[in-house]
Amino acid sequence: MDLSDRIETGMQTAIRYATANGCPPKLAQALRYAVFPGGARIRPRICLAVALACGDRNPRAANAAATAIELLHCASLVHDDLPCFDNAATRRGKASVHSEFGEAIALLVGDGLIVSAFETVARETAQAPELTARIISTVANAVGAPYGLVAGQAWESEPKINIAAYHRAKTASLFTGAVSSGAIASNGNPLDWYGLADALGAAYQVADDLYDALGETGSMGKPAGQDALFGRPNLVAELGVEGALKELRSLVKQAADQVPDCNGADMLRAIIHTEAQRLMPAKLAASAA
Amino acid sequence: MDLSDRIETGMQTAIRYATANGCPPKLAQALRYAVFPGGARIRPRICLAVALACGDRNPRAANAAATAIELLHCASLVHDDLPCFDNAATRRGKASVHSEFGEAIALLVGDGLIVSAFETVARETAQAPELTARIISTVANAVGAPYGLVAGQAWESEPKINIAAYHRAKTASLFTGAVSSGAIASNGNPLDWYGLADALGAAYQVADDLYDALGETGSMGKPAGQDALFGRPNLVAELGVEGALKELRSLVKQAADQVPDCNGADMLRAIIHTEAQRLMPAKLAASAA
Repeated sequence: MDLSDRIETGMQTAIRYATANGCPPKLAQALRYAVFPGGARIRPRICLAVALACGDRNPRAANAAATAIELLHCASLVHDDLPCFDNAATRRGKASVHSEFGEAIALLVGDGLIVSAFETVARETAQAPELTARIISTVANAVGAPYGLVAGQAWESEPKINIAAYHRAKTASLFTGAVSSGAIASNGNPLDWYGLADALGAAYQVADDLYDALGETGSMGKPAGQDALFGRPNLVAELGVEGALKELRSLVKQAADQVPDCNGADMLRAIIHTEAQRLMPAKLAASAA
Repeated sequence: MDLSDRIETGMQTAIRYATANGCPPKLAQALRYAVFPGGARIRPRICLAVALACGDRNPRAANAAATAIELLHCASLVHDDLPCFDNAATRRGKASVHSEFGEAIALLVGDGLIVSAFETVARETAQAPELTARIISTVANAVGAPYGLVAGQAWESEPKINIAAYHRAKTASLFTGAVSSGAIASNGNPLDWYGLADALGAAYQVADDLYDALGETGSMGKPAGQDALFGRPNLVAELGVEGALKELRSLVKQAADQVPDCNGADMLRAIIHTEAQRLMPAKLAASAA
């Protein structure tokens, strides 16, 4: 099964459990709407690619980790789009969840997807109990307080933003979670993988800044121009498009260089370059390769 | 250590991890505000009481389950108070989290507490890996979709409410989660405990209806009169105060009768009667004993 099939199968299974017979119909519809069709699924692809590079010793656990990471990413998008944050009417080329189903259901969809992520790991690792707590802790650290997505979003409510902490929490943390949980699922040592995770997270942040500044919605799926609108830090404002692009190229190279010695190292480096293409704004993709 | 000490220590530890050095300051303050001082802590008390009745074989796992249940309860209160749901300005005699810190932070506090609940179980059961997945699945079922708190809240967005499913999801599910996870933490069989969980959940729903109808804020901590305001089903409207009170007495007796044979059965029955007093509107407590 290729990476996309593993990810979509994992997402379908998770949503099937969450929307089983007896679920309030609107909630069920909105849960599915928030998750399908997906975006680029970059984080779960990275998670599975690392698991494969480590020998894919427990595919079921790796699939669960990848699914959990993507469910949590989707949850964060649904909550970030709400009026009290970005107030985004669209996402991935269609109405955002709250625009389509109302704020109450959107809030519950986010909550439900967070719960589903942890439930998925628990269910799918029941036969590999030595992995359950490690994967759940890793994933929880990536999304909760004090250093995960929740903290990243909360920095936007502070009068003075710690920019390094903000970017690390809002963007890099979920890449770290994806890389680390993929390694853990295959009995790899997550410490060997932090260099890669850091470089990937930083690269993604630069790509996100480029999208926002260039006014291209692209594979991130959120409306552009939000950073200027909300007065958030953006690297393009600081370095210009050329400077940001140079930084991005350098970070992708760093990421590939940081892949530790392992059987699947070459395959993983190839995936990193492919994913870097996918996360590049279309009008820059050729020049950043 | 008595039950209250175990619960408050567990809550303090969880919040200490979530607000560790580097957490955005407002988020840290709001996380603490949402959890301390607590309400009656009825659900974690029930969880620990069941664990004790089963021999308290793994106190650390039982404490983690109780803490997770209460963190999730607190998360649901913070989200339920938001303008898109109950729009409640107060909770437990002070400003609700969104009144005090704004909607954005309140939403993140709820998300953060959900994550912290699962992280707590993972961290505290690392030495008892056979329990991790079982406790996390049990707790997740109690709060997620299709049958937990999230589903209960979502029924309020349906044009036609399935009342039995609504009450089971919104109120009984977390009692079932508390009872079952307490049993699992002590190697008990949760199936033996479903009768107790069902009766307790139903009793709590009647008590909640009584509070709401009698206009007493009491230990539930939410403003009264919400059911009539939002057109929600309420047993007092159907049976009158006397009828509801009779039902409540009968359910508390049922709960005590459903305690299965175990070493701590008498102690647990005593706790059920004490807790029943605590969840009774003050003006009715004497007559319902």
